[in-house]
Amino acid sequence: MTLHDELTQQPRTLARLLSAVRPAAAEVAERVRSTRPGVILIAARGTSDNAARYAQYLWGERAGLTVGLAAPALFGPLSAPPALDAAFVVGISQSGASPDLVAVVTEARRQGRPTVAITNDPSSPLAAAADHVVDLHAGPEHAVAATKTFTAQLAVVAMIAAELAPRPGDAEALSAVPDAVAAALATEAAVAACAARFADVQRAAVLGRGLDLAIAHEWALKTQELTYVLAQPASTADFAHGPRAVVEPGFPVLAVATQEALVDGTVASLADLRGQGARTLVLTDRPGAFADVADEILVIPRRVPEWLAPIPAVVVGQLWALHLSRARGLDPDLPRALSKVTRTR
Amino acid sequence: MTLHDELTQQPRTLARLLSAVRPAAAEVAERVRSTRPGVILIAARGTSDNAARYAQYLWGERAGLTVGLAAPALFGPLSAPPALDAAFVVGISQSGASPDLVAVVTEARRQGRPTVAITNDPSSPLAAAADHVVDLHAGPEHAVAATKTFTAQLAVVAMIAAELAPRPGDAEALSAVPDAVAAALATEAAVAACAARFADVQRAAVLGRGLDLAIAHEWALKTQELTYVLAQPASTADFAHGPRAVVEPGFPVLAVATQEALVDGTVASLADLRGQGARTLVLTDRPGAFADVADEILVIPRRVPEWLAPIPAVVVGQLWALHLSRARGLDPDLPRALSKVTRTR
Repeated sequence: MTLHDELTQQPRTLARLLSAVRPAAAEVAERVRSTRPGVILIAARGTSDNAARYAQYLWGERAGLTVGLAAPALFGPLSAPPALDAAFVVGISQSGASPDLVAVVTEARRQGRPTVAITNDPSSPLAAAADHVVDLHAGPEHAVAATKTFTAQLAVVAMIAAELAPRPGDAEALSAVPDAVAAALATEAAVAACAARFADVQRAAVLGRGLDLAIAHEWALKTQELTYVLAQPASTADFAHGPRAVVEPGFPVLAVATQEALVDGTVASLADLRGQGARTLVLTDRPGAFADVADEILVIPRRVPEWLAPIPAVVVGQLWALHLSRARGLDPDLPRALSKVTRTR
Repeated sequence: MTLHDELTQQPRTLARLLSAVRPAAAEVAERVRSTRPGVILIAARGTSDNAARYAQYLWGERAGLTVGLAAPALFGPLSAPPALDAAFVVGISQSGASPDLVAVVTEARRQGRPTVAITNDPSSPLAAAADHVVDLHAGPEHAVAATKTFTAQLAVVAMIAAELAPRPGDAEALSAVPDAVAAALATEAAVAACAARFADVQRAAVLGRGLDLAIAHEWALKTQELTYVLAQPASTADFAHGPRAVVEPGFPVLAVATQEALVDGTVASLADLRGQGARTLVLTDRPGAFADVADEILVIPRRVPEWLAPIPAVVVGQLWALHLSRARGLDPDLPRALSKVTRTR
């Protein structure tokens, strides 16, 4: 089973997830409603941290919840852990094996707070530590770079959002996700051709905001893991507060743009950065809006409403990183220095 | 007034701050105690966001508070803002002028939640929006790259921590900060020589954990602003979950290490990365511990206890970025594409 196999499996893994996970998502949402937490604290690392970023915006925007990302180091080798009196703690981990994440969930439970594990291994230590377990049902993931477990995490976050604050059309929208991902996968030839034109780059910035920030982070992470390009993710706004100085003629600036309300701001930022010489590549389902500021556009077929658009978007980002890896003469199934399960303390 | 002037002013600005700010810090701590918030939510961008990271760990570790970084985009052009029922909101901004940060504080106040502005301009919109204002007393900052306002923000965060959870020796420790910073500045010749040896790099990673993560982020940001090296900050643990694949022979890995409890983990991570070929530079007040895993060490004279050690540490990082800028033939007083006040929405 190669990375490419797993990547192309995603319509199937998502379809399975959508039919299997609804009771668990409803149970988590019910627990959130009954405990009325002051803050949802998510513990995650790497790819799973990017699913946490999607939750931070989606649960904030949709359900009015305040969502923070936990600082696992506070629960580790340092001193006494913080009080979690108002917190609802969610651990997200593909393997469920990283001790620092297990420590956060274990401490929350010790303090009597509600806990959830979202993991692809329901027999993992993380699952054992939590009150509620949401199984990603993604099947074994062999490739070192996580793909199908990431889109499964995003789908779980979306399903919990729909249970927390239901809106008309949610069920239809969610059930369209596998087809939207299949349509994204069908752009592979164009994505591969685009990636090949970036074969010689060493550095890049990857920008997004709101729900798209999670996808910018994940696109950057896949690019780092598979191509060794130093791809730095940033919110479009944070990038303006200093890091933009690194942009010189030809410097690649990648941007994710699937949210209508953020189009104007993103166009303005890209116009600015292009004035500095940036080579811009936009991943979007609204190509017309970026025609004047993008050197290249990766077009995501629009098949789902905005709140779900990040899911097909990241699939195009995954394909791009895989093909950039090949274009650079690397093997995307053998990224250097990484192993499938990372255990940090 | 050049960047170098402002950088070397820091012992004086910090001494002034320590004598002027205590009442305001005590007032903020008292308000936190009386409201018992479930979460402290900090809104900040750029350099100020790195002061927020210091607060996340220090207030968590010392005072047991759960501290999260706000997502300002949720308060902007999107939909309804989240409920802040359990939150205590702190805005940190040197200029106090960025509309997205003002929006977070304004919304918190509208919801009847306690708010604080930490700013160098007590007549700014951010200050006007907040219940409590902590003035940084840093004097006008002319250089585009923030230095003295950043160490002032760290000192304010530390003073609030000392008021929240007083410990014997706090007053002496805080009063030693200006001398500790002066001692850090006195290492300038060695720092400049080290920076010159990195004149040709284009990429780097900057690692830290716990309290040192804030300093890793700020060292990376100063390096980006002043030298245009793409310096990517990461927690030492997160870096292991994927980004480490970018490390190849000669790739610079910078690390900040001022916390005893994290030394062993950092040594192990650096040994690993060096096995991959990384060129390692460690900024530390415990040089002996890193002798076997560091290609070069920037030594911070140890003059303050651990919780304050990040302040002199970042000053050495500032000096390093300034001298790297000069070594690359750039003008640290004219970073491209940046202006002093950044207004994002």
